[in-house]
This record gives sequence, structure tokens and C-alpha cells, in this order.
Amino acid sequence: MSPVKKSVYLDHNATTPIHPEVISRVPGWLESWGNPSSIHWAGRGPKAIIREARSNLAQALGVEPLELIFTSGGSEANNLAIKGVCEAGLRDHVLVSAVEHPSVRKAAEALRDGGFTVDVVRVNRDGSLDLEDLAAKLTERTALVSIMFANNETGHLLPIREVVSMAHAVGALVHCDAVQGLGKVELNLRELGVDLASLSGHKFYSLKGCGVLYVRRGVTLNSLIHGGGQERGRRAGTENLLAIASLGFMAAKTSEIPAQAERVRLLRDEFEERVMREIPDVVLTGGRNGPARLGNTSNLTLAGIDGETLLMNLDVRGFAVSTGAACSAGSPEPSPVLLAMGLTRAEAQSSLRVSFGWETTREDVDAFIEALTAVVIRLRGFKHGEAFTYGL
Amino acid sequence: MSPVKKSVYLDHNATTPIHPEVISRVPGWLESWGNPSSIHWAGRGPKAIIREARSNLAQALGVEPLELIFTSGGSEANNLAIKGVCEAGLRDHVLVSAVEHPSVRKAAEALRDGGFTVDVVRVNRDGSLDLEDLAAKLTERTALVSIMFANNETGHLLPIREVVSMAHAVGALVHCDAVQGLGKVELNLRELGVDLASLSGHKFYSLKGCGVLYVRRGVTLNSLIHGGGQERGRRAGTENLLAIASLGFMAAKTSEIPAQAERVRLLRDEFEERVMREIPDVVLTGGRNGPARLGNTSNLTLAGIDGETLLMNLDVRGFAVSTGAACSAGSPEPSPVLLAMGLTRAEAQSSLRVSFGWETTREDVDAFIEALTAVVIRLRGFKHGEAFTYGL
Repeated sequence: MSPVKKSVYLDHNATTPIHPEVISRVPGWLESWGNPSSIHWAGRGPKAIIREARSNLAQALGVEPLELIFTSGGSEANNLAIKGVCEAGLRDHVLVSAVEHPSVRKAAEALRDGGFTVDVVRVNRDGSLDLEDLAAKLTERTALVSIMFANNETGHLLPIREVVSMAHAVGALVHCDAVQGLGKVELNLRELGVDLASLSGHKFYSLKGCGVLYVRRGVTLNSLIHGGGQERGRRAGTENLLAIASLGFMAAKTSEIPAQAERVRLLRDEFEERVMREIPDVVLTGGRNGPARLGNTSNLTLAGIDGETLLMNLDVRGFAVSTGAACSAGSPEPSPVLLAMGLTRAEAQSSLRVSFGWETTREDVDAFIEALTAVVIRLRGFKHGEAFTYGL
Repeated sequence: MSPVKKSVYLDHNATTPIHPEVISRVPGWLESWGNPSSIHWAGRGPKAIIREARSNLAQALGVEPLELIFTSGGSEANNLAIKGVCEAGLRDHVLVSAVEHPSVRKAAEALRDGGFTVDVVRVNRDGSLDLEDLAAKLTERTALVSIMFANNETGHLLPIREVVSMAHAVGALVHCDAVQGLGKVELNLRELGVDLASLSGHKFYSLKGCGVLYVRRGVTLNSLIHGGGQERGRRAGTENLLAIASLGFMAAKTSEIPAQAERVRLLRDEFEERVMREIPDVVLTGGRNGPARLGNTSNLTLAGIDGETLLMNLDVRGFAVSTGAACSAGSPEPSPVLLAMGLTRAEAQSSLRVSFGWETTREDVDAFIEALTAVVIRLRGFKHGEAFTYGL
């Protein structure tokens, strides 16, 4: 058995490690355990933590503090946005792109029972959004268009500004699932022009259990969780103080994003260049001429390789990566995102997603390329008749 | 100004301090930062933590692990139960008691827009549920009866078994908001006979951001948060690992509950006896002949005292308590719970809730009685013409 190398985490689009400075601050935050709604001493520290986190985030995102609603995560934020806006309005038509996260797709589908029509906007083989299809499907019945900032599997950036312009022209609102954008690019929601946007703390080196929904002032939405007056009556429930504190802390670090993103992009570019030079029959998903991508994400198709098997073989060597279908890990179904782009089932099932992060080093990338090369050669060899022994 | 005494927290029904053993385990749990849905090494530790927490909780509650859904808290659990069951069924009538938590009341009210009829079951002046009113309002159209285990403001226990028996007789399901029960009594959900029950971690010495919905096997409910396959497709969103781990850890301590509850009850009883002996015109809310109560909760009405003013005066002396209206802290409105019991606005506005917990000592209670006596005498004195100086 090959010696297990040090663990290398290259699955930052699934979740990120917790920032060391967050870890070191947790004991301090734990001292503020009171209920932020309490008006006595035990509530004041927690309330101040939430206020500061909201303020940091608002500044980082170019919006007002009271335009932000803390949720339990990106999935809740997406559901709140889509169901909340549609149920509060008079229009009955929803548009989502074909490559949205399941929490967007399924929230939209749930509206069908309430009489809504849901249409899906196509994407092209290169990962770009089919704007002609969007134009054809947008009507004055359209309540909301939900388009992600960047795809979690391919990293492709979607044309948010064009979508906003087209949607607003017919009076539709735009929600942007920006979960994969936070921490990877500078994100100014006001400049982006969207009406709602979802974010998640645990994709940005923070603790799990905290997301954010940006709701532009003036946009009306129904609550998903009714009850107490938290979040100005828009989201009930005692706040997840620790996770909110951690996201607020990271929000104050957004000035570090451009330099980190550039460093990560260089590692990613070098990784792609070397892999495609050193391993035969590797294709960049969507190709070289597709839309701009997040600088941290590589989605590759490796002919003749089963993605799950590849993942498991890399895992025993200490490398954490994912197949195209990150959110349905363990499912035998190929990624709906890759199928929507027009990949065959076989192509989709031979995909590999590598997503780099702030703590990724050149040594990590070198070690990963070495392991990937060895595993791919071995797996391709088995196809020609060799015995397969898991983990060897 | 009086010297500020050491801080004494007597508001455990709002939230509890974090158990010291939870605090000491947080750094270890932080090492499991991966996404539990990931099938590589980073996901396995987190997945195991969730599995163990679910198993501990199931054992503590007398149910099966897969009957438990982790949510972001009690409010989400209440909303998921009420909206999820009603939207999944064919009946169109919902019953809630008049003293339910806002997350139950308002979730039920939200169903009205979907065509549901919502009726409120009265409570009596002594805090008991009016079972004749329940009988009169239960029909074969009733989808769900939502009744809390114990009231958060008065501690009164509601007659769950009777409600279950009456509701099941007409084919209605029963949801129990048991948030105030967890950690204060032994709670066997199977024996209780309810179909759904909500719990919250932060009322049981755990971290904020984790609740639980028990859904008896065979009960169908719609999701509130759609998306990934977490919680067997019933609640999407990356799990709040840290809070789940902490609640699972505390669930393994349920064997400590009876002894702690008895110790706390003795302190509470002694507190009530002394206060009613030493301070004139203090009445136990609901009276001495009402239903059984949680052993940790005292709700008192102090004639001629404004609850908010009392709270603030005790706060500056280091004592954290609440008025009757804990969930609408800062609101000038008197507690809907106390009004529902038939108290006048004046009575409701002169109420004080004291809720004791595992770390409460006899010294805390003695110090609190001394402070309460002094503040009440002073505040009542002002009514007769003395100058009022805040915090003196």
C-alpha cells in the first residue's frame, strides 16, 4: 500500500476549513452565550456581536446592515428568497437557470404546488447562460429570476448584470445565489444590481450554521420561519451567535480577498496546464473558450475514468476532491449541472472537481498532480485487464 | 450607587449558559470542519459526529434516530412541523392553544393564507388548558393540534396525553412544542404519544443554532427548506456541526436531569415561599391550585410594580430575570400568554419570570431575594412621591 501522504484538502467549494483566527476567537465568543433578545446584561454582549457582524458584512458587500437577514445557511437563504418573494407578490412565473444549486431548483419546484409556473433557462455546452432562451422565457408574469453568481461545480461565472437588466425591463426581480462568490472575488451586491442575494459562512472559512440573505430595501418578502421578532420580524429564531460572529469576523477580512484570489488562481492555472500536459485525454469541462470562471475551481473530464473511483483512490492517499456532483455525494447519478451543459452521462461520470483555497500551497498542488497522474494511469490500466484492489 | 454584585443568571427559560464540558470539547469538535456530505476523509468525522448525536438524542427521547430531524432551532422545528404537516395533508383545520410560543402561533396564522382555518384553544385563569373548549373545536377537518409541553412564561405543564387521546380520536395529529421540557424533566416522546415534537439545544446548555423535530415514523410532512439530501431529504442545508455535537453531548447527560431537576425545584419552592412571605402583595401567576409546573420556573405578579422597571433595576445589580413577555423583550405590550390566562393588562405588566438552572446555587437565590426585596420596596416607595433615580 502506498504510504498515506499528509492530508491535502482541495474541495473548498464543498466547505472551507475554519480560519485559524476564527478558531482562536471561539473561546472568547463562547463567553457571550446570552439570548440576544434579552434586555439584561446577558443579552447585551450577544446583541453587540450580531450588530458588529451585520455591519462588517454590509460594508464588505456594499449594502446597508438592515438589508441583511441572518439565516441558518445558504440553503435557507435560497428558499427564503425564492418562496418569500414569490408568495408575497402577484405574479406567478419563476425562472431559474439549468445549473442552479438544488436548494434553488427545488425551492422553485415547491412553488409549483402553489400554482406557479417554473421555467428553466438553458446553458450552453461551454457553461454560458443562453441569454436568448432567457429573453424568450421572460414575461410580464415573471416574478423572479434566480441565477447563481458562479457555478459550484464548474466555477463558471454567470452574466448577472445582463440578467438584471433584462429582468428589470419586464418588472421581474432577480435573486442571485452568490454562495460560491463570497471569499473568492470582490462582491459588491449594490453594483451587481440584484434584488436579493444568498451567502453562506462555511464557504468562507467561518463556522457552519450561518448564511445571509441580502434583500434590497423596498423588496417585500414573506417569512419562511415565523415567530419572534428577530431580524426585524423577517426570520424568527434565536440567532446562531458563534457562527454569526465568525462570519462577521471574516467579513472584516475581505480586503485580503484580491491577493488570495490571485495567488490561488495562479496555482489553479498552473495545475490545469500541467495536468493537461502530463495526463492524456483530460478536458476542461466547458472548454477553454467558455465564460470567465472562479479562479479557484477546476472541473476536468478524464476519459475512461469513473469519477467516484478516482475520488476514493485519491482519498486513501489523503487528497480530498469531489466529482462533478458535489451535492449528491454518494449518489450514482451523474451531475445534473454537467448534463445540463450537454455532457453525456459517461462524460459527466468521469468528471473531477478540484477547488483550491486560502491555505492551499504549491507543494499541495505538486503532490496532488503526482498522485492524480499515478491513479489515472493505474485506473486506465485496469481497464485493459489488470486486477483491481481498492486502495492499493 | 449600590455595589454591583456578582452576576446571577435566573433566566434559563430564555437561554441557558453553555455547559462547561461543552465548552471544553469545542476545540476538538472544531477539528471536524468538513462537509458531512463529502465522501472523502474530511466528511467522515463530521458525519460520525452527527450520527452519534442523533443516536444519543434518540436514546434520550425514547425514539428512533431516523425519527429526528436536525433544524436550526426550536422556531424552525415548530414551523416545519406545523406548515409541513398541514401542507402535506388533506384536512384544513389547525388548533393551537392560547399560550403557545410565537413561532407556533404565527406559523399557524401563516397557514390561513393557504386556506386553513386556525382556531385557538382557551386556557383557564389557573393556566390549565380548557379541555372542553378543545373538545368543542376538534373536528374531523382538524389536521393538527399544536400544544406545548410546558409554558415558557409560567412553567405550567399542559395535558399532552389527554390532548393526544382526544385528537387521535378524530384522526388529527398532535405536535408538541417541548422546547421548555428538554433538560427540565425526563422526556419520553414515545410514551407521550405525540406525533411530532420540537426541541432546542440552547435551552439545554448547548450551543445556539440547533433544534430538533421529532417526526413519528409514518407521519408525512413537506419540507420547509428544500435542496440537498441532508436529513433524508427532509431538511436541506449543510449541518451546524458544532451545535449538533454539543446537543448530542448533552443528550448523553439526560440521566443527570432528575437529580438536577429536584435540586432546582427545591430552590425554586424555597424562593417562592420566602418571597411570598417576605414581600407583600406578591401573587403566584395562575395561583397555587393550577396545573403542575416545571420545577425551575416562577412567574409572579407584584402589585404596583412595572415589570420592565423591576427588570432594569435588578439588571444593574447583576441579576438577569425577565418579565412575563420574554419573547417580546423591549416591547411595551403585556404578555399575550398572561392576557390569555385572563390577567388584566396591569397585572400582566407587573409580572416577573424567574427561571433557575443547573448552575444556580442557594447563594444566588439568597442574593436575589435580598435584591428583589430592596428593589420592590424602593419602587413601591416611589409611587408615594419619592424621586426616582435610575440605577440607584
